[in-house]
Amino acid sequence: MDIHKSHLLVLGLLLCLMTTQTSAKYEYQIKYLDVPLDHFTYVNESVTFKLRYLVNDTYNTDGKGPILFYTGNEGDIENFAQNTGFMWEIAPELKATLLFAEHRYYGKTLPFGNNSFESPKNLGYLTSEQALADFAFLLAEINPSNRSTRGRPVIAFGGSYGGMLAAWFRMKYPHLVTGAIASSAPILQFDTDCGVFSQILTTVFRVAYKRECVWNIERSWDVLKNYSSTADGLKVLKDSFKFCGNITKAEDITDTFFDYLSDVYGNLAMINYPYNSTFLAPVPAYPVREFCGRLDQNFTGLELIGRLQEALSIYSNYTGQTKCLNIANAYDDNMGTAGWDFQSCTEMVMPMCSEGSGKDMFLKKSWDEKKFSDDCFKKFGVRPKTNVAMTNYGGLYLDAASNIVFSNGLQDPWSGGGVLQSSNNAIKIVLIPEGAHHIDLRAASDEDPGSVRGARQVHLLSIQKWIKQYRKKLNKY
Amino acid sequence: MDIHKSHLLVLGLLLCLMTTQTSAKYEYQIKYLDVPLDHFTYVNESVTFKLRYLVNDTYNTDGKGPILFYTGNEGDIENFAQNTGFMWEIAPELKATLLFAEHRYYGKTLPFGNNSFESPKNLGYLTSEQALADFAFLLAEINPSNRSTRGRPVIAFGGSYGGMLAAWFRMKYPHLVTGAIASSAPILQFDTDCGVFSQILTTVFRVAYKRECVWNIERSWDVLKNYSSTADGLKVLKDSFKFCGNITKAEDITDTFFDYLSDVYGNLAMINYPYNSTFLAPVPAYPVREFCGRLDQNFTGLELIGRLQEALSIYSNYTGQTKCLNIANAYDDNMGTAGWDFQSCTEMVMPMCSEGSGKDMFLKKSWDEKKFSDDCFKKFGVRPKTNVAMTNYGGLYLDAASNIVFSNGLQDPWSGGGVLQSSNNAIKIVLIPEGAHHIDLRAASDEDPGSVRGARQVHLLSIQKWIKQYRKKLNKY
Repeated sequence: MDIHKSHLLVLGLLLCLMTTQTSAKYEYQIKYLDVPLDHFTYVNESVTFKLRYLVNDTYNTDGKGPILFYTGNEGDIENFAQNTGFMWEIAPELKATLLFAEHRYYGKTLPFGNNSFESPKNLGYLTSEQALADFAFLLAEINPSNRSTRGRPVIAFGGSYGGMLAAWFRMKYPHLVTGAIASSAPILQFDTDCGVFSQILTTVFRVAYKRECVWNIERSWDVLKNYSSTADGLKVLKDSFKFCGNITKAEDITDTFFDYLSDVYGNLAMINYPYNSTFLAPVPAYPVREFCGRLDQNFTGLELIGRLQEALSIYSNYTGQTKCLNIANAYDDNMGTAGWDFQSCTEMVMPMCSEGSGKDMFLKKSWDEKKFSDDCFKKFGVRPKTNVAMTNYGGLYLDAASNIVFSNGLQDPWSGGGVLQSSNNAIKIVLIPEGAHHIDLRAASDEDPGSVRGARQVHLLSIQKWIKQYRKKLNKY
Repeated sequence: MDIHKSHLLVLGLLLCLMTTQTSAKYEYQIKYLDVPLDHFTYVNESVTFKLRYLVNDTYNTDGKGPILFYTGNEGDIENFAQNTGFMWEIAPELKATLLFAEHRYYGKTLPFGNNSFESPKNLGYLTSEQALADFAFLLAEINPSNRSTRGRPVIAFGGSYGGMLAAWFRMKYPHLVTGAIASSAPILQFDTDCGVFSQILTTVFRVAYKRECVWNIERSWDVLKNYSSTADGLKVLKDSFKFCGNITKAEDITDTFFDYLSDVYGNLAMINYPYNSTFLAPVPAYPVREFCGRLDQNFTGLELIGRLQEALSIYSNYTGQTKCLNIANAYDDNMGTAGWDFQSCTEMVMPMCSEGSGKDMFLKKSWDEKKFSDDCFKKFGVRPKTNVAMTNYGGLYLDAASNIVFSNGLQDPWSGGGVLQSSNNAIKIVLIPEGAHHIDLRAASDEDPGSVRGARQVHLLSIQKWIKQYRKKLNKY
């Protein structure tokens, strides 16, 4: 975990998948398709693996409806199916088939089974391009087109990295995908000011309740550091925060715990939904406000520590069932983690930094490309290729793209890497001032603010337009 | 050579590269760039090879001109540079840099040197997707873009398979390529009636001079077959055609020589230019007319054989220097051949057949996918993936493509797989009724018919429009 933990919040994207198991609300068939391990070479052309995908075909009553295709991202596809209520809610009206495809190397789609994470020998086939090619391969199988018959229209959906994939899928395979809803998709994060995530995050905390919240966080780093410098101080911290493991040295606080705190702040902002949720952890509605409510005056010293502990419990122990605070393992160290770590170490390199000094609520931490690269090499035997994503997908140069909605909640720290404007009329930009991370793809709730409801309306209208466009052209080739 | 030889004319594309060495008319610097062997996995991420490219920067006087980029196809890039006069002719007016990039595994761009053709271990990295990624990598290096500065506009050019690559390059990497001139690019050949090539070819011969020409060719198959069935007959043929090697069995005629003849007929049509050329072999102007001029009455038996031999010499011995007819080696068995054979056996699968019985001038020969696959497996240890090109590039479903000119000479048998119509206004279709294979990319000649001159005008106007579009948007991101 060192690689991204040493770089503030770079893991944020990944966290989206660490959903606590929700009860299955939506139903589907689970299927598998044999897919080539390597779509782009013929060195081992006969090697395939089983790609898992989920299908619900109950609404497609006339057999001609569109296919709503979730482009799976870094986690178990069943979690995405359960957490993307918007697709389920529009499927009946569209008479659509629902299709959720798992991303290779996540969930149960492990090309080499338990050995999948031997890198780079086995893990080296984990790339976004191969994942998109898997999706294309699946569609060619399920919904074939040839010169005499064209398949049913397909709409891609995805949130976070899944949203990046949905947009790229439309960009790279427009003949297979009629349009894409890319929610909270930071496709510009490869080439954006590295501090923007921290700045937006700080703003979310600044406006959530009282301004003292951010001031307390800013002060907390030094207070914690001071306590960490002596054995007695460490014991105080251990008792206050009820850490699960042993705390024996300053770095346990200034590295491990600081990273944990940064990640939790990022997560709280991402899941700052207007209702209770269990997406990353069980939390109350507006968890940032709840968090800041416990840091509502200027605290110092031991009192600040106590208040911070209480505030943290909003995230770490909202159920009251947690016995101790596991800062070494804030995320299940499951296979998803290893997968995303590897992707960040190869093509999905998103530089992150913080400036401190009032510009954000963190300590100053530059983006250290060399250290990042060395850590990657130590862990995986690979070095990041920082330009690959830009060369392959184009960053902000989207002139030729069409039929993509980029939606971003402005309360989401990832919006700093999102597409927030475009001079290309074939792309639609949806800003959700009151929205957190891809809230528009979640199931409708009575608590949804107007901007979220509005975003879903725009999505549906775009989808209907694309399908109509597609059907109109069917006989014009 | 069995694989494609057993399938009428499937090698036609390849032939474009078998240029006899022309004297160097155009000058350039030869450069090399280290490029990743595999752009889409990280199994051996540090392995690179030297990609050769050619640059002429003399016209780019203000440093801001466009880059005219030839997407190299299946052969030595120097030959393409010398045979694409159109690019050289428009460069001064556009103040453009000329750039010709060699396709991996052709010319001097051999990733594993002399071992490059050990398949599939080494040869498996030869795919169109990897080649396009090489071109993207090269452009990212030479002409970098980032969020603050955008590179110079790039126009892709290519003929035949190079034209397919030019079109696909624009489709897959539109942020790097502003527009593409795709000349004689049969991107639909994967999913077209397998007999269309033979039919167009027959038409070219039918109209070239007198209708007796095709009748003689039609009759010749049986005559040759009859002679091949006896030792005496074989000797007659050997003496008549002056074969270089020994002719010992019927199959030397009915397999090897028949394939040779079919290929020569295809080549004659492709290079049916209105002036002498040395592109595939030294031939006179309008070589099909010359060929048919020697078959201008109904001949039979031995007389037909003699006339056919004379006609063939238009292609095989126009210089009068050839001592014997090398039918086993109509194409240099150089590395280019092995490369294209492999590509046809993996993703570039273009089914070819002929029907005979007056529909075309060939014997009936179905497309036998199983035999083709078995031959590929025997030769390379791989089996064709017949759907890959369609899934990856979309065939005729080009709704989302833009800024591509598809030009086709209607005298070119490859035009049957070309894009001859489109309901997409962002694509331009140029038909050249009097044109052979990518004649519009060749240097202007006094002999060029009006339709060829017109095509070049349209190309230039499109290019100018794209560059203007690009520059207008430069400050709008």
